[in-house]
Amino acid sequence: MSKIRTGIVGYGNIGRGVEKAIQQNPDFELAAILTRRSPEDLIVETKSVPKIHVDDALSLKEKIDVMILCGGSATDLPVQGPQFAASFNTVDSYDTHAKIPDFYREMNEASQKAGLVSVLSAGWDPGLFSMNRALMQAVLPNGAGCTFWGKGVSQGHSDAIRRVDGVEAAIQYTIPIETAIEKARRGEGNLLSTREKTIRECFVVAKAGADKAEIETKIKTMPYYFSDYDTIVHFISRDEYDTNHTDMAHGGFVVHSGKMNGNRHTIEFSLDTNHNAEFTASILVAYARAAYRFYMEGRTGALTVFDIPISYLSVKSDEELRKELL
Amino acid sequence: MSKIRTGIVGYGNIGRGVEKAIQQNPDFELAAILTRRSPEDLIVETKSVPKIHVDDALSLKEKIDVMILCGGSATDLPVQGPQFAASFNTVDSYDTHAKIPDFYREMNEASQKAGLVSVLSAGWDPGLFSMNRALMQAVLPNGAGCTFWGKGVSQGHSDAIRRVDGVEAAIQYTIPIETAIEKARRGEGNLLSTREKTIRECFVVAKAGADKAEIETKIKTMPYYFSDYDTIVHFISRDEYDTNHTDMAHGGFVVHSGKMNGNRHTIEFSLDTNHNAEFTASILVAYARAAYRFYMEGRTGALTVFDIPISYLSVKSDEELRKELL
Repeated sequence: MSKIRTGIVGYGNIGRGVEKAIQQNPDFELAAILTRRSPEDLIVETKSVPKIHVDDALSLKEKIDVMILCGGSATDLPVQGPQFAASFNTVDSYDTHAKIPDFYREMNEASQKAGLVSVLSAGWDPGLFSMNRALMQAVLPNGAGCTFWGKGVSQGHSDAIRRVDGVEAAIQYTIPIETAIEKARRGEGNLLSTREKTIRECFVVAKAGADKAEIETKIKTMPYYFSDYDTIVHFISRDEYDTNHTDMAHGGFVVHSGKMNGNRHTIEFSLDTNHNAEFTASILVAYARAAYRFYMEGRTGALTVFDIPISYLSVKSDEELRKELL
Repeated sequence: MSKIRTGIVGYGNIGRGVEKAIQQNPDFELAAILTRRSPEDLIVETKSVPKIHVDDALSLKEKIDVMILCGGSATDLPVQGPQFAASFNTVDSYDTHAKIPDFYREMNEASQKAGLVSVLSAGWDPGLFSMNRALMQAVLPNGAGCTFWGKGVSQGHSDAIRRVDGVEAAIQYTIPIETAIEKARRGEGNLLSTREKTIRECFVVAKAGADKAEIETKIKTMPYYFSDYDTIVHFISRDEYDTNHTDMAHGGFVVHSGKMNGNRHTIEFSLDTNHNAEFTASILVAYARAAYRFYMEGRTGALTVFDIPISYLSVKSDEELRKELL
């Protein structure tokens, strides 16, 4: 069986994770790493793999089965997504929830026109969590679901703190509240406010001479990021920051509880990872397998986790799945 | 939109659960209850629904979109499955793991020949748990998974105790062992023996004059059911049994933990239900929706949870799923 020739577009945390995930999947082959930087200056783990500038992507048209788009959702994917979907099968982890319908439309149009397949928003949320939200709702329609994020590091919130005047370094941990989890397990997840669900705990290194009280106020009142939450701010030394606060652990879970005939049923899907980006990368590779298989079957257009049977993610045959895992 | 006209085959615990689950799904309509008993003597909750003898099933051929087969896996489904699949779209919760490949073959043949769809083994295990085992393995191939059942009542083990001489009544609780769960979360789930994973706790009402020591020995040494486990036997009064040991609660979870580049990722899917049969029934109804949709698309043959995208289980449109749940 020939391997799935895979390109990585963007060599940041997720791109490097995809490189490692491909090594764990014997039906995949890393065929190229694409970058916006100068390719010859890019230091990659897999020395033998061609490094190509994104502007030269079309030269790879016959050499790549699936491109895994590893850029950010804010500025990279809205542009790169449709561009690459016009010439390659693609997978991405686009995660701006509110704009997904628009992104879907653009990706679907590009992929259909090209006779190719794109799989969008295939990380853990959106992605595996979304799939579970839909599954649980379908099985227990008379119920309520709730998604908790954490305990883990939010890059977006950490970045927001770093932009505050007087902050030298900062990290933000998202922490789900135990009493809220219990409520969600009793089917009251839909009644919980943002503040009731999540605490935001911040560890901040202040610049020498900065006004810590002012920094704390600025963080706690920051709209959207912190003002709707109970936010805790700790000031720590640079040393403590460097020693204890550089990991990329994250986690979270989807809870759904429903009632029928007086009986309660509760389903949960949870994850706990030491490295958010590498976990997302592992999911992207599984969905790249699905994208390739759909393409080989002659399907075209954009797909999400809702559209893809689990068998398409697995390296096992249907017979093996039924025999070993059903 | 016309409703999915649904037949219930077998009016035991699962059949009654399906009747209730249909009431929670507005796109379904209960069209008939089929029984091997005398239909006129069958007391059902939905008074208005036709009660039909299974031998007269063919009279319903034009009146039913999906038959939900609610019989047992030991003797009912091996016969009823292929019989009904020859004339109806079907869904079942066939759960004799070792015989699934054979059952699949028979169901697939019957359904393909008839130009119809059957969905087999669509409960929680096999079913939702199987789907999660495959998903987790696909995402974290360099890892190990493990399934725990309980805490909950095993009907099969309870029945086995009831067959022991001198036993008047009995119930068996399957209890996962906490240290084993922790090991599974560290990626050592594949190293656990049956005995390390699960305790079997039995509450037994002995007949007057029966030899309790002998009963206990017979239970603990019973091959397959108990001899491979640490089994605890309590003798209790009939009163205590009737008061405290009649529920149908169950639960369980799938844990999978994998490592990449020194980082660990752990995924879990768990469920907790007050009523095992009603929860299974809720899943069957969601998969009945999928069976019907596959049939309407012209697909034929047998399908499992591995083959069915989540969108087919949901009453929501693809647009709604992407907008609301992705």
